Amino acid sequence: MRVLGVDPGLTRCGIGVVEGVAGRPLTMLGVGVVRTPADADIGHRLVAMERGIEEWLETHRPERVAVERVFSQHNVRTVMGTAQASAVAMLCASRRGIPVTLHTPSEVKAAVTGSGRADKAQVGAMVTRLLRLDAPPRPADAADALALAICHIWRAPAQNRLQQAVAAHHARKGHTA
Amino acid sequence: MRVLGVDPGLTRCGIGVVEGVAGRPLTMLGVGVVRTPADADIGHRLVAMERGIEEWLETHRPERVAVERVFSQHNVRTVMGTAQASAVAMLCASRRGIPVTLHTPSEVKAAVTGSGRADKAQVGAMVTRLLRLDAPPRPADAADALALAICHIWRAPAQNRLQQAVAAHHARKGHTA
Repeated sequence: MRVLGVDPGLTRCGIGVVEGVAGRPLTMLGVGVVRTPADADIGHRLVAMERGIEEWLETHRPERVAVERVFSQHNVRTVMGTAQASAVAMLCASRRGIPVTLHTPSEVKAAVTGSGRADKAQVGAMVTRLLRLDAPPRPADAADALALAICHIWRAPAQNRLQQAVAAHHARKGHTA
Repeated sequence: MRVLGVDPGLTRCGIGVVEGVAGRPLTMLGVGVVRTPADADIGHRLVAMERGIEEWLETHRPERVAVERVFSQHNVRTVMGTAQASAVAMLCASRRGIPVTLHTPSEVKAAVTGSGRADKAQVGAMVTRLLRLDAPPRPADAADALALAICHIWRAPAQNRLQQAVAAHHARKGHTA
């Protein structure tokens, strides 16, 4: 399974592409950030963000896109930019028919470090180890995007089993799955 | 000047198209809402929103798009949907090279009723009067979108004068405007 992770942000949007299956060594296919100029107007920033994300999708053709779920505890200005960047990422993926899954920051941290409260350094260290990199990816947004992709690959079997159980339940009840 | 106003929302996004210049009677060219199903996944809702807004832009070819500035006082869940819908609207407009302007709710209320604290009924009544309609547009999101477009047309002369002053200042200083 090839997953493109997105750590959304309007100034720096982290992107990481990981391939693999749960229980086997994972491979990093690409990592980077899409940047938009903070002094440009919002419309142009969103167009630049769309162009950048499209390039990543076009180059790597992921089967799944995993996006960090935006949360309330940030201040409102940050949340706005994050929500806007994540909207562009989800739009681009869905337009191509690529399924999008949201993961909370604590799900991601728990998946790669074992603790939902791990700090950035710990996440970076585990991403480096799990992908057998020479050094933690920079900036931190890029490492977080890789962690999202890893989290998605590892959680996918459980999610698929759940979907199959729901489908089987509906089939038994005579509904279409 | 033909302006398309957007009152952003993921479940109901109000759209209103108004033509005219400040100081002259205004004409409503269209009003409605783009709806996306609340039970669909977010990616599909954003794709549906993009398609709906593109149809409005294609049909009416506005010279300007005015979008309500999203604010902090709403609850976070509402703000997220609003931010995502407004991101799609700004992206669609900017991709077509249409300038986008954000107006705060109080700017819009003050423009059409004289008070930044006017309620929805008052805004609806003034939109009805200013556009010489038989009844207030429904739902309220549609009336708000028309109010945004009216606000933009009326504020535009001041904004243009400001832009011209800035340009003249730069020209005097020997900068490119």
